[in-house]
Amino acid sequence: MSRVAYVNGRYVPHRQAVVHIEDRGYQFADGVYEVIAVERGRLVDEVPHLERLDRSLAEIRIRPPMARAALRSVMREVLRRNRIDEGILYIQMTRGVAPREHAFPARGDTALVMTAKRARGRPPSVVEDGVRVITLPDIRWGRCDIKTIALLPNVLAKQQAREGGAYEAWLVDRQGQVTEGSSTNAWIVTKAGRLVTRSATHAILNGITRQSVIRLAKSDGLALEERPFTVAEAKAAREAFLTSTTSQVLAVTEIDDEVIANGKAGSFTLKLRALYLGYASGPGTSA
Amino acid sequence: MSRVAYVNGRYVPHRQAVVHIEDRGYQFADGVYEVIAVERGRLVDEVPHLERLDRSLAEIRIRPPMARAALRSVMREVLRRNRIDEGILYIQMTRGVAPREHAFPARGDTALVMTAKRARGRPPSVVEDGVRVITLPDIRWGRCDIKTIALLPNVLAKQQAREGGAYEAWLVDRQGQVTEGSSTNAWIVTKAGRLVTRSATHAILNGITRQSVIRLAKSDGLALEERPFTVAEAKAAREAFLTSTTSQVLAVTEIDDEVIANGKAGSFTLKLRALYLGYASGPGTSA
Repeated sequence: MSRVAYVNGRYVPHRQAVVHIEDRGYQFADGVYEVIAVERGRLVDEVPHLERLDRSLAEIRIRPPMARAALRSVMREVLRRNRIDEGILYIQMTRGVAPREHAFPARGDTALVMTAKRARGRPPSVVEDGVRVITLPDIRWGRCDIKTIALLPNVLAKQQAREGGAYEAWLVDRQGQVTEGSSTNAWIVTKAGRLVTRSATHAILNGITRQSVIRLAKSDGLALEERPFTVAEAKAAREAFLTSTTSQVLAVTEIDDEVIANGKAGSFTLKLRALYLGYASGPGTSA
Repeated sequence: MSRVAYVNGRYVPHRQAVVHIEDRGYQFADGVYEVIAVERGRLVDEVPHLERLDRSLAEIRIRPPMARAALRSVMREVLRRNRIDEGILYIQMTRGVAPREHAFPARGDTALVMTAKRARGRPPSVVEDGVRVITLPDIRWGRCDIKTIALLPNVLAKQQAREGGAYEAWLVDRQGQVTEGSSTNAWIVTKAGRLVTRSATHAILNGITRQSVIRLAKSDGLALEERPFTVAEAKAAREAFLTSTTSQVLAVTEIDDEVIANGKAGSFTLKLRALYLGYASGPGTSA
């Protein structure tokens, strides 16, 4: 079956899915996006993702291309046409096509692109053994809370991680504190068994999976602190893990060259992973 | 006459100039660009622009799409097909099309897009009266020396300038020192008649016009300091001006709500502008 993409009002074969070279997404990174998981045919945390998308649009003052109900219809049609029961829906919105000039164009329609694909499952060995992360200076801009397509710094960090044999790069601010990963949020569990993840300021993207895990942890009675932590604190932690739409909850068992605890996914991580997977595949995650 | 764009090996009508939605320039801002002025049919500072382009590519490890001689042939062909004698040539290169994933794709051809347009002349009143700039915190990433298409912070700053009735926004670092404008370099002339512009570190783009003006100033025996200056120093300066490919040398006569000197373009600015215009339209600027 051939893939279908939605591009500015039309459903087109993926191979022929194109935008104009003066789409401001291409020349200025003037746009935002969301990635939503699909589990058993349902969009996981659909409403929180759409609310964050609206917020991102509002922060950089791009008009939504259509009302939410219409958008949700398109999302479902993209899933239907691609026959996706388990996978990923990708939504991108930009300030549209206009002659190249930095300032906003006087007119112009918001561009909307949507794709979907089947996601590969994560092998069980990674779940149990966890993954390695490296640490790098966080050189990104000051508004990482907006989910923009200006992802070049994240691309470079992820590539450095891959070349260092790592799954992810944890980014470190000038104070030596971890902000987040290049495409994931960062967590530790202290020796005393308290969950720690950085609070959602302008320095990090407030992950939807992060928010769900916070809610699930609290419901389960776990102690949680939203605060920065240093690389040293992470290396000495009882457990470490990362969260994201595609990685869900994944143990971090090595940071730079330090093995965390016994080098295996710990009990907090595995419990939160199980809680999250149950939540994501269960009813009620999508309206 | 209809405009023609060059897109990945083909000359196409501008209206039909498209790239795939999974071009990494569109989804990750994973690309770089140059804007080169055309004066009397010649590309101004062509070689320095192409050298900076090569440097930008190398810094983010994108392979040049073709040898320089071939690239220069395409550049000339784009000018010829668009009949541009006075105007602007735009060149953009990205890491090409690949399934969406942050890390570099294993394979993939560098994408190349080129357009040209006639530039409007700047009205003489602006040259004599100068322009207003506002100051804003510089929240961009740590590698502004690379001329990437991740321009969203610059877009937002320029828009704020426009809405504040200003031509440009001068960006200010945590030390209260001006880095540069959102698409121009920033200069002042001290009371003692010394030119000051920030040295070319990772904090600014080393403008080609900036470099030409430095060279012309030195040849003319002017005193020059490459160092940061504060907003307060700029407001109390004898003159202020900005440089860029499209603005050339342009007086800044108001910073936030402070009028600089007598509110007119000063003698240093006008002299440097004349030197630059003579250089740009003269022989020997393009090989």
